[in-house]
Amino acid sequence: MRKGKTFILCGPSGVGKGTVVARLLAQDPTLYFSVSATTRPPRPGEVDGVHYHFLTREQFEEWIAADEFLEHAQFVGNCYGTPRKYVDDAMERGRDVLLDIEIQGAEQVHRKRPEAVRIYIAPPSWAELERRLVGRGTEDMEKVRSRLERGRQEFAAAKDFDYFVINDTVEHAVSELRAIMRAEHCRPAERLDMIDRY
Amino acid sequence: MRKGKTFILCGPSGVGKGTVVARLLAQDPTLYFSVSATTRPPRPGEVDGVHYHFLTREQFEEWIAADEFLEHAQFVGNCYGTPRKYVDDAMERGRDVLLDIEIQGAEQVHRKRPEAVRIYIAPPSWAELERRLVGRGTEDMEKVRSRLERGRQEFAAAKDFDYFVINDTVEHAVSELRAIMRAEHCRPAERLDMIDRY
Repeated sequence: MRKGKTFILCGPSGVGKGTVVARLLAQDPTLYFSVSATTRPPRPGEVDGVHYHFLTREQFEEWIAADEFLEHAQFVGNCYGTPRKYVDDAMERGRDVLLDIEIQGAEQVHRKRPEAVRIYIAPPSWAELERRLVGRGTEDMEKVRSRLERGRQEFAAAKDFDYFVINDTVEHAVSELRAIMRAEHCRPAERLDMIDRY
Repeated sequence: MRKGKTFILCGPSGVGKGTVVARLLAQDPTLYFSVSATTRPPRPGEVDGVHYHFLTREQFEEWIAADEFLEHAQFVGNCYGTPRKYVDDAMERGRDVLLDIEIQGAEQVHRKRPEAVRIYIAPPSWAELERRLVGRGTEDMEKVRSRLERGRQEFAAAKDFDYFVINDTVEHAVSELRAIMRAEHCRPAERLDMIDRY
């Protein structure tokens, strides 16, 4: 059986990654979407192991010490991380893994797993991203501007990514992502075994 | 308009590249299949510019001197080469280019155009390749054995190719090739311009 691969998805806030990921998972139920661990307390309706793996700060620090995270970081006083074991289990069972993480996290994963494929989901334009962020109506202009500024900085850091997918329409982005995932399974490293076995 | 990319297809004699290429061209008429130049005289029914660009040896040598070939080689006393200008014209007009060439030719193109994508079309197994070569019924066992031997040697040289596509069925190989061509158009180098323009 072919082994799964890890695909790291990064992109600015508001680019629509959540929708793209949901569509990918709906089209291919063998995909494994990595659930993050966090020290943030669960919000009403959030289920442990589904929305997050909820850990105490002590547990989180034990996991760090045991190298149980592919990447981890702090935001606003809470810790977030990608547990290694669920990713590895899924790949061993032949499932491709999607990680929806921050650029800094992608760099951590890239150092540990250079074979993980890094994909940046880009807006069709910065003006369109601003329109989407404002359209959400959930944030004041101050926050929108700070998200846009951060998006532009991260964009510069993403230039050595493997792929850039423009999320102009969800259908288009999803079909490009599926082509990328398929193409990455045609890499020689994967296929040489196959041929050498004969 | 996006610029075209060059895709180099290599693979052992008998692997079924011709059928795969014909199917690709039928599915996507924007693809440009590179027509080789040769000093071999035309056979009955062969049309200049369609099957080959037929050149005199003098012309061929002038083209070599003028760096008009992406790759060229001699086989059984005749010269064969891939003319640069048709490939470049097609790419400028946004067409992807397919080159069906030998491994040595692929190495020459790779040196001149490292951005050209190298794809090795592999048989599902060496036993299956032998079966296909014998099944043609056009060659004695001596020739079949020598083609197989050459195929195995070239296979070793193809291990640094970008992709390996197994031609188990034409449909499967073609859909993998289309995914690869699509994915290669999602490389950052191509997309950064797009984003930076906004």
